[in-house]
Amino acid sequence: MDVPVVYQIALDVMGGDNAPVATLEGALAALEAHSDLFLHLVGDEARLRPLMRQLGFKGELEARCAVVHAASVVGMDDKATSILKEKKDSSIRVAAQLVREGRADGVVSMGHTGAAMVASKLVLGSLDGVDRPCLAAILPNMHGRPTVLLDVGANIDCRPEHLAQFAVMGSIYAEEVLGIVKPRVGVLSVGEEEGKGSAIVKEAANALRDMDLNFLGNAEGRDIWNGKFDVITCDGFVGNALLKSAEALAEGLIEGLRGVFHENLFTKLGAVFSRPALKRFAKKLDYAEYGGAPLLGVKGISIIGHGRSNSRAVHSAIRAALVACEHRVNDHIQETLGRLMSQAGSQEPS
Amino acid sequence: MDVPVVYQIALDVMGGDNAPVATLEGALAALEAHSDLFLHLVGDEARLRPLMRQLGFKGELEARCAVVHAASVVGMDDKATSILKEKKDSSIRVAAQLVREGRADGVVSMGHTGAAMVASKLVLGSLDGVDRPCLAAILPNMHGRPTVLLDVGANIDCRPEHLAQFAVMGSIYAEEVLGIVKPRVGVLSVGEEEGKGSAIVKEAANALRDMDLNFLGNAEGRDIWNGKFDVITCDGFVGNALLKSAEALAEGLIEGLRGVFHENLFTKLGAVFSRPALKRFAKKLDYAEYGGAPLLGVKGISIIGHGRSNSRAVHSAIRAALVACEHRVNDHIQETLGRLMSQAGSQEPS
Repeated sequence: MDVPVVYQIALDVMGGDNAPVATLEGALAALEAHSDLFLHLVGDEARLRPLMRQLGFKGELEARCAVVHAASVVGMDDKATSILKEKKDSSIRVAAQLVREGRADGVVSMGHTGAAMVASKLVLGSLDGVDRPCLAAILPNMHGRPTVLLDVGANIDCRPEHLAQFAVMGSIYAEEVLGIVKPRVGVLSVGEEEGKGSAIVKEAANALRDMDLNFLGNAEGRDIWNGKFDVITCDGFVGNALLKSAEALAEGLIEGLRGVFHENLFTKLGAVFSRPALKRFAKKLDYAEYGGAPLLGVKGISIIGHGRSNSRAVHSAIRAALVACEHRVNDHIQETLGRLMSQAGSQEPS
Repeated sequence: MDVPVVYQIALDVMGGDNAPVATLEGALAALEAHSDLFLHLVGDEARLRPLMRQLGFKGELEARCAVVHAASVVGMDDKATSILKEKKDSSIRVAAQLVREGRADGVVSMGHTGAAMVASKLVLGSLDGVDRPCLAAILPNMHGRPTVLLDVGANIDCRPEHLAQFAVMGSIYAEEVLGIVKPRVGVLSVGEEEGKGSAIVKEAANALRDMDLNFLGNAEGRDIWNGKFDVITCDGFVGNALLKSAEALAEGLIEGLRGVFHENLFTKLGAVFSRPALKRFAKKLDYAEYGGAPLLGVKGISIIGHGRSNSRAVHSAIRAALVACEHRVNDHIQETLGRLMSQAGSQEPS
């Protein structure tokens, strides 16, 4: 009899605004949906055990998870680097440690984004050939499909070769985890014409053009949303500003519309008639569907979810980590990056 | 009897997707609303004359405008720099020339943004003490008030002192033209804590902290929309990406919602009940209210409107130019910049 392959994911159960209830609910849903999943539930054991019983962890599902105790949590007011000193025993640090020790294949956290990045970068370390791990946002575009924007905050100042590496890693993630065939790759600039943009962007475009990628050239800010590209690479400063701006703008617009529907009896009636269609529309744009931002280029899989994740987003994040393991994303990254970078390198004037 | 002060604005009547009808309608509305306005209508005279008669330019209103002939228009496929060579006789170039020759105080165009920028920067030239003119986007925030984001595309690579100058110019524009008392100024970064961000941003923040401005420190992408800041300075690469992303995202969301309301009979009924409230909401976010992006730091006033401007947006753009003249924005910029930059300079170690 074949021994079934099982992937082990360490979940930071204590991280996130709705933790530990939403994280445990998401964990349970993921265990139900994926029979090749084993979860390490990292957090305050005394608190988690009774909650798990209450939420219905039992039988075969319970057998596919283990509780790993962590004494503290990184709070929103803590520094990201606190995991290196005073919060060495925090749930995110302990979860990352499991990956480092080879006891888990990946780590998933909805907690402090900075701390999760530091834990993944420093505890796990970079893959061979990766100069800089980067954070990829999976954004729903207007066709209801995902666009990968990266880096969104792991690297402030980037050199051209970093932008090129981000593009390669993003393309592999888009293909393997999001199921996009031959992802269309662009580099963010201020105009679509070749030669527009900063010196760094132009050099990155040149490097990408020489690579065996489906590189379409320059992308603009609008292309994040219109589905013209599947992967857009940029430095972490721009990506972070774009992500935070988009989140706030979309939320503000939706909040404003909600206000509109509560104005008076007529608009409330309007809302009743429109509700199912509005829900379908909102679902098309729902971040929870994609489950979080992968930190690409580290040894092991790392998915960092939004602090406000609900149980569905937690489930999606765990699924993303699992699919990344199943599709051996890191092997692909290491292999492809080695090949492409040596390609690009060999074309430089000697 | 006092001779009334009159401000002269050169309008590129041929620029914009809806030109020349929308530009002429906007011009007429502006002439009606502002008795201290004289307009130079720059464009194809043979085409404009009959159209003006048709639209009702007559009597006192007609007396407050002059048609200035321009033989060509910069098309969307032309290069921005075409105004320097093959399109020297274009409406935007001729309009800018009127300002340079002292025949007009400001220029307004809804045409090719790049060409309008080049015309303003090269034909008008920079104000004394301004290293780099910059383009300011006036964005409606969630409180229905404007937030000034600058630079949004005039300068790709910026040094710290450029970011500081943008902030000063934006603050003056916000105060004088948008009527915001003691504008709250921020520098765009990846976190609100002091010390977060690139070396350039940190240096810019230090310079701004030393100035006599209402400087609050670092702003994040989300702060463009939440009304925490009135003015946010950034380099033109980031600003351009942010602006184009936000435009596409907002349009996509609104387009998607429109689709929702057309799905079936119930949702159409929903739309009927909600229409007045939706209109009020849309008006709160309407770019047309602010009329365009000022190019700050050039000799003379320059307002660059959106290509898709309707007549109301044209009117708003002309009004913005007029108010900038009335409030002597450029005198303030020159005076303040001279004072603040020498302040900042004098605090450097000798």
